[in-house]
Amino acid sequence: MAKLKVGLFGLGTVGEGIIKVVANARNANAEIKKICVRDSSKQRNVKVDPALITEDRYEILNDPEINLIVEVINDPEAAYEIVTEALKQGKPVVSGSKTMLARHLPELIELQKKNKVSLLYDASSCGSIPVIRNLEEYYDNDLLLEVKGILNGSSNYILSRVFDHNENYEDALQTAIRLGFAEADPSFDIEGYDSLYKLIIITVHALGVYVDPEKIFTYGITHISDFDINIAKEKRVKIKLVAQVVKISDSRFTMFVMPEFVRKSRYIYNVDDEYNGVVIRGEGYDRQFMFGKGAGSLPTASSILSDMVAHRHGYKYGYKKMNFEDTPEYTTDVLLKVYVRYKETPIPELLPFHSIQERYNSLNVNYVVGEINLKDLINYKDVLMKEDVFIVNFSRFFEDRDD
Amino acid sequence: MAKLKVGLFGLGTVGEGIIKVVANARNANAEIKKICVRDSSKQRNVKVDPALITEDRYEILNDPEINLIVEVINDPEAAYEIVTEALKQGKPVVSGSKTMLARHLPELIELQKKNKVSLLYDASSCGSIPVIRNLEEYYDNDLLLEVKGILNGSSNYILSRVFDHNENYEDALQTAIRLGFAEADPSFDIEGYDSLYKLIIITVHALGVYVDPEKIFTYGITHISDFDINIAKEKRVKIKLVAQVVKISDSRFTMFVMPEFVRKSRYIYNVDDEYNGVVIRGEGYDRQFMFGKGAGSLPTASSILSDMVAHRHGYKYGYKKMNFEDTPEYTTDVLLKVYVRYKETPIPELLPFHSIQERYNSLNVNYVVGEINLKDLINYKDVLMKEDVFIVNFSRFFEDRDD
Repeated sequence: MAKLKVGLFGLGTVGEGIIKVVANARNANAEIKKICVRDSSKQRNVKVDPALITEDRYEILNDPEINLIVEVINDPEAAYEIVTEALKQGKPVVSGSKTMLARHLPELIELQKKNKVSLLYDASSCGSIPVIRNLEEYYDNDLLLEVKGILNGSSNYILSRVFDHNENYEDALQTAIRLGFAEADPSFDIEGYDSLYKLIIITVHALGVYVDPEKIFTYGITHISDFDINIAKEKRVKIKLVAQVVKISDSRFTMFVMPEFVRKSRYIYNVDDEYNGVVIRGEGYDRQFMFGKGAGSLPTASSILSDMVAHRHGYKYGYKKMNFEDTPEYTTDVLLKVYVRYKETPIPELLPFHSIQERYNSLNVNYVVGEINLKDLINYKDVLMKEDVFIVNFSRFFEDRDD
Repeated sequence: MAKLKVGLFGLGTVGEGIIKVVANARNANAEIKKICVRDSSKQRNVKVDPALITEDRYEILNDPEINLIVEVINDPEAAYEIVTEALKQGKPVVSGSKTMLARHLPELIELQKKNKVSLLYDASSCGSIPVIRNLEEYYDNDLLLEVKGILNGSSNYILSRVFDHNENYEDALQTAIRLGFAEADPSFDIEGYDSLYKLIIITVHALGVYVDPEKIFTYGITHISDFDINIAKEKRVKIKLVAQVVKISDSRFTMFVMPEFVRKSRYIYNVDDEYNGVVIRGEGYDRQFMFGKGAGSLPTASSILSDMVAHRHGYKYGYKKMNFEDTPEYTTDVLLKVYVRYKETPIPELLPFHSIQERYNSLNVNYVVGEINLKDLINYKDVLMKEDVFIVNFSRFFEDRDD
């Protein structure tokens, strides 16, 4: 097998981790030949030969000696241009750009087939946890029923400070930003979009279906209040930001990202701090739980290394489930049981609840617990996004589920 | 890809599970063509066409239409004969026989190479948890430092009844036997040999080294007493039967199976009942935890199905780490900190402790806590096996480890 001569795009947190991890992996037979960055004058935290650095992407894309592109940049548009150009040239790619992947997977799958070239991206979902590879290769049959988990470390870190360390939400958010667990603009993480993009990628490998991000109900933790937190604590549950894709029959599945009341008996209850945890449920094997560091420099870089070596051994994603005779159909026509807290917005009047089990009213705050169709949550998202409103899902939403 | 025409050896708990799981996996494109059993007159719990059943192994081995052997019998000698004969004929095999595999892996690896045929056996270690495949394919680099876990469901079920449900050991053992979590003769599980064989298979894929079972310190939970259990409860830890393989330097590793005091902060602390849990630790990614059903009819059968489908897609184990330039060397020259409880056997006089930190003596029971070399535990195994003696490992045995 030929030595890997890598053209690396990006020398941020993950890029620096890749430099370190590749240096320690003696048997990987890999060399970083060129590194493309936005600003070559920037100080780096790793020692890199300045001769390797370039700001011109074509120094990598047009170098015939480079036989693998590793792309870990923060700009989804530039990532899309680089990855598609590389694939069109027949150059294999390892990528960690979840936003770009989630938006363009159908085209990227076509490009892989057409140009007989591989694009691997296990690092894009849950960092060092090998979720994609296992869904594609090990849970590669009809038995899979559900993938559910905590896919975003930043929001989980914040909720963990709130529920395990009794901090208030705002303090926890500021701590997360200070420690680098959340971005200065944390909205991508805490509004659920990071989880959403990972869920889209996961669903392609779990069920063989690509769903447009626009069609998926995504609701974060931005509006959580002390009142909600106390309600959860009284119920002896935690609120977690959960992403899930669930088969609801042989022919249909649903998916969404939403805060959820998580009971102590659930595997994800103990996924704390910046960790990620994923439950894979299927007929026969029941629930498998995978837990680990979902983000960060070295964990993500070690996942990139796994993909680099897999490529060297000829590995490609087969997208096998996309070729199954009867892939299930995405539906939002499914009844959920939710808690909706509000102040001024007249939630019970505005939202078309199927039934209401609990109402609470006071001078300062109100809530309602009831059953509502997921498709109505999508229709009334603007109502749910009002400042005074927060919604939490109950996990037992299909009557016959034991989850 | 050709349809899988399977010759199945064994129709016990796992074999019956395979019949069910294959029936549900529409896209697996697999058919059970023949089933070889020891006693064809036996009543089965699944409906099987009697015409498929045979007692003659050559009806499968000599059938040119059968393109995959699935072997899940309980007899290691017969399993060895069947699997080697199949491989010599160039017939691929999926096997779940850990004892047979652990004893014969070097020869079986040679046979795979020589006859360019695949032998897959993920079900042999931790049932439905994809440990082998992930160690071989995802943690396929130099970063891996340790694999440690609870690999045996029966002994874990018993210890879990004792520590989580306050049953006494003998009652717990009888319950386990009654519920089918332990065999009528439970010694294989509770004396640690089931864990040992799994650990040997895991080590081949974790570090690329095969170690003879005879050379590995293996100590079960047979001699555990109420006194030991109370000591653990006072320390607010649980005793778990733990199997581990650990790199102690770049060039050396050790491995053993032994009861261990497990603190609440450890991932495996919460692996209860009949479940298995494995921690994979490496440079970069730190600790990954995989948790699930380690045994039982359907979980094991679903793992067999994963291997069947992987074979259909051309998957073979690469045994890549065996070809690394510098595979680490197995050593037993390593200092452990242990608790040894005894009554008549004069443990402090007989065992060559490096140092002793605690001594407790009373009329009925004594114990000592001290440091001792693993190789001396092997040398003095007959002393440790005396009726009045029980040994438990402390997990922090290398000073620089944070485990």
